[in-house]
Amino acid sequence: MKVKLIESELARLGKVPRLNLVNSLSGYKSANLIATANSKGQTNLAIFSSVIHLGSDPALLGFILRPTTVSRHTYDNIRDTSDYTINHIHEDMIESAHQTSGKYPAGHSEFEATGLTPEPWQDHRAPFVAESKIQIGLRFEEEHLLEANRTRLIVGRILEIRFPSEIQDPDGTLDLSRAKVVTISGADTYSLPATIRRMPYVRL
Amino acid sequence: MKVKLIESELARLGKVPRLNLVNSLSGYKSANLIATANSKGQTNLAIFSSVIHLGSDPALLGFILRPTTVSRHTYDNIRDTSDYTINHIHEDMIESAHQTSGKYPAGHSEFEATGLTPEPWQDHRAPFVAESKIQIGLRFEEEHLLEANRTRLIVGRILEIRFPSEIQDPDGTLDLSRAKVVTISGADTYSLPATIRRMPYVRL
Repeated sequence: MKVKLIESELARLGKVPRLNLVNSLSGYKSANLIATANSKGQTNLAIFSSVIHLGSDPALLGFILRPTTVSRHTYDNIRDTSDYTINHIHEDMIESAHQTSGKYPAGHSEFEATGLTPEPWQDHRAPFVAESKIQIGLRFEEEHLLEANRTRLIVGRILEIRFPSEIQDPDGTLDLSRAKVVTISGADTYSLPATIRRMPYVRL
Repeated sequence: MKVKLIESELARLGKVPRLNLVNSLSGYKSANLIATANSKGQTNLAIFSSVIHLGSDPALLGFILRPTTVSRHTYDNIRDTSDYTINHIHEDMIESAHQTSGKYPAGHSEFEATGLTPEPWQDHRAPFVAESKIQIGLRFEEEHLLEANRTRLIVGRILEIRFPSEIQDPDGTLDLSRAKVVTISGADTYSLPATIRRMPYVRL
């Protein structure tokens, strides 16, 4: 049976069913840990399912910060130091990565709380996550405040990439399945994709 | 062996290896078809891997439009009529959905070229894709032009949702795996995720 819900019906759902339903509607989402530090060196680590590709020349990634997010420190630290790292979540990191979504008290690092290990990034404040196979260091570029709900799109330029050579295909692509990178759907479901096929460029 | 690439090395890669590499870096991406029509009723259909969740109250989705995209008609039609639909891509639609990425001549609809079927949406211009199990009708809300590379974030408000009742969990979540929704990684790899686990809300 096909369900049809219009905007007013969606608005009348309870908060949790609406959140769960709408969170499913974009499709599968990326699963990353964003690591930052403030100018005093206090680190912060938070899970994000909103990292998106914006362009390859210059190489840019974006992510969405919610106004009510537990990871408000991520924003403060990025604006403080301008640098941050995006680190992929693998199958064996789901538990510890998900733990970063808790509301830890100020002055308490999620690295200590979850057992994940900060890996220094030369003279940058923000550390990488040592357990992640795919690590990306970025510099803040611009931000856009959405009028519709006060979320922010944060745009960063890629300064450095680290990955194991064995997951790269000859054409440059990183095979995420070889690194057992996971994907998030809805609010809290973790899945592991299996490659079906690569499609050729469409020429007419 | 761990590969480290800094910004200047990334810039010196050839266009295709750089595009393939950077396209892999955000992680798994959503796989959707966006359908629009202009005010004369001429339809357009294009594949997007950049649809993201922005919030559930109000229910908002975003997507990224590249300045050089073949789906420039998507933007023109949305600004013309304000409405568009986002339709999930399933395993058995990969071939036809991918075909929409070709550069079809003006006045030629991708619906005809790919064999996908437009499904009317009441009095709205934009059609749904009949073959998609999860269909979302939206109204344009706002756009943000990124200075860094002239791409646009398009923000839309959800007006209607259509899905088969059997893929919804009791808590409201749509189980994308039951609908065989696919995910895209890199420039052209389609994968089918299998659920590993749902994680509980983290309380401290």
